[in-house]
Amino acid sequence: MSLDYLALANAGVEKLHPYQPGKPVAELERELGISNSVKLASNENPLGLSPKARAAIERSLPELARYPDANGFALKSALAGKLGVNTDQLVLGNGSNELIDLVFHTFVAAQQQVVFSQYTFIVYAMATQAHGAQAVEIPAKDFGHDLDAMAAAITDQTKLVCITNPNNPTGTFLTKAELAAFLAKVPRQVLVILDEAYTEYVAEDERHPSIDWLAQYPNLIVSRTFSKAYGLAGLRVGYMVAHPELISVLNRVREPFNCNSLGLAAAEAALNDEAYLSEVVELNRREMARYETFFEQLGLRYVTSRGNFITLDLQRNAAPVYEALLREGVIVRPIAGYGLPTCLRISIGLEHENQRCMDALAKILA
Amino acid sequence: MSLDYLALANAGVEKLHPYQPGKPVAELERELGISNSVKLASNENPLGLSPKARAAIERSLPELARYPDANGFALKSALAGKLGVNTDQLVLGNGSNELIDLVFHTFVAAQQQVVFSQYTFIVYAMATQAHGAQAVEIPAKDFGHDLDAMAAAITDQTKLVCITNPNNPTGTFLTKAELAAFLAKVPRQVLVILDEAYTEYVAEDERHPSIDWLAQYPNLIVSRTFSKAYGLAGLRVGYMVAHPELISVLNRVREPFNCNSLGLAAAEAALNDEAYLSEVVELNRREMARYETFFEQLGLRYVTSRGNFITLDLQRNAAPVYEALLREGVIVRPIAGYGLPTCLRISIGLEHENQRCMDALAKILA
Repeated sequence: MSLDYLALANAGVEKLHPYQPGKPVAELERELGISNSVKLASNENPLGLSPKARAAIERSLPELARYPDANGFALKSALAGKLGVNTDQLVLGNGSNELIDLVFHTFVAAQQQVVFSQYTFIVYAMATQAHGAQAVEIPAKDFGHDLDAMAAAITDQTKLVCITNPNNPTGTFLTKAELAAFLAKVPRQVLVILDEAYTEYVAEDERHPSIDWLAQYPNLIVSRTFSKAYGLAGLRVGYMVAHPELISVLNRVREPFNCNSLGLAAAEAALNDEAYLSEVVELNRREMARYETFFEQLGLRYVTSRGNFITLDLQRNAAPVYEALLREGVIVRPIAGYGLPTCLRISIGLEHENQRCMDALAKILA
Repeated sequence: MSLDYLALANAGVEKLHPYQPGKPVAELERELGISNSVKLASNENPLGLSPKARAAIERSLPELARYPDANGFALKSALAGKLGVNTDQLVLGNGSNELIDLVFHTFVAAQQQVVFSQYTFIVYAMATQAHGAQAVEIPAKDFGHDLDAMAAAITDQTKLVCITNPNNPTGTFLTKAELAAFLAKVPRQVLVILDEAYTEYVAEDERHPSIDWLAQYPNLIVSRTFSKAYGLAGLRVGYMVAHPELISVLNRVREPFNCNSLGLAAAEAALNDEAYLSEVVELNRREMARYETFFEQLGLRYVTSRGNFITLDLQRNAAPVYEALLREGVIVRPIAGYGLPTCLRISIGLEHENQRCMDALAKILA
């Protein structure tokens, strides 16, 4: 006995397709009959957990039968100190994905418009669809955001603009001057999520002073994560920084125990592990340069990236190359689902992992 | 510079108040200038983490920089085997709280009606309010659900009925006969969440065969959690069991990485730790009986409970007794926020913790 569940569901759900995450390595290896593969598919940190984060997890295990601190007091205090904001400007989430959804749950209603770029983080399009809102997708310029066109697309119906910088999956980067000029053009009642999931990989002198901008723009929401440079993707911790009154409204809708205890403890420790973060960023810088040199030697087109990944444009259907890489035990991310069927996104791994990827690519493309 | 954020927010948000969790022990001790207090406030498992769950966490630490398995394959397989269902009948969540919200996000729209009982888990009222839906709260009967009145309250506008059994915060219990008769009366297009967060504490021969009912009722959703008897509140893992097509619709809206890696691993291990679960249930049974005897000796009124907590009705304002208990270092839960200002909910702790609570109560009420 069944029911027409889609007919019972809210507007938008019928046209929604679940996010397709990269397959777990074990599953892929089983399917392909291979072993010892390298996974460069999900922009994960190849250095693994920071030693300080691991120690913090061990210390927290005896209290795991207790509920987490619903206010994340310790982590928010550490973040506030680091960012130079007050704790009431912070909301913590089960990954920044949950917080993006929280902004939609709180502020975006059916029929309202959400503006974002072509070739950006797919969660914006999914959340827009799930809420029965109208997606206003602006064609990309050079694989990245066309901020002039995005500003021009804002109407009286626009509730939210979403920007990812550096952008995922292409790695393109908007300068502080470009972003500042854009923010000045956005009407105050239109909220802006500035998603900086990869900001730690950007050189200090290039980074946008987004936290400083909060004083000027009450509609700005800065989103960050511990899943990338801080190496905690498995524990799901993200945060947003915004005006305290905006945060207070988000907290009305937030689930109280949305962050798990080990994530809270590990994130606080990782935030203070400067040595680990330096090693992460330096490895990424060095290996990114190797990929660029390699692509140039092979005459391959790529998108200059400020993230922990690089997108290769094969200028033909990339699927066969993706499949051939898999058979060589190298797992990268096809991004046809993002509208880029000629591209593959390669996460920057350890040196020997990247070497395997380059060797496999050289062999396949020869 | 600020904005009227509430005016920008969706219908329902303005009247929403955040859930008030129990204060962390450290915070309360700081405020009161006490130490060595016992926390019997959040229905947590006093035995702590199962040894098998702890070992599973340790084994998973090296992979923490990777994203979790978005499909929770291993845990769903273990649950399917245990429950006698298929994995496509299961959805995993960041605690059952997230899954309750997910049902609302997916199926409940503004103006629709949600039916639940007075004195039940407060998240139903909050989710109803957050979605701009209409709460139809049915007066309780003997501190529990009045199923006849709930069935009679269903109209063409009703989208969802929420039942908690055993009920929280009162511990009342609906028999299988009562529930079966109710389900037979609910129209097929009205979804029913049967929240069994405390079901592991119910004696086997009393438990309702809710999983079997799924074959008969395509509108039934059974919700359970690893936060109570399985001792994993800090790691946030819950699950729902329902018709595979209903689960598939929920998966369209679910965030892909909603469950963290350590939660998935620990829950799978805890599920197989039968010795631990037996110890948990036996401790609860034994100590619950001690509380009942103690209350009867003091001539105090209490609600017979099938959960891991017991609700004491002081038949006068309970706040001064709550405060006096705090000063004795015993933290229980006042439930005035549930409409029960004369009651205190006491979670069943370890023997010496319960003894401290009883001694403190005897002293205060003398």
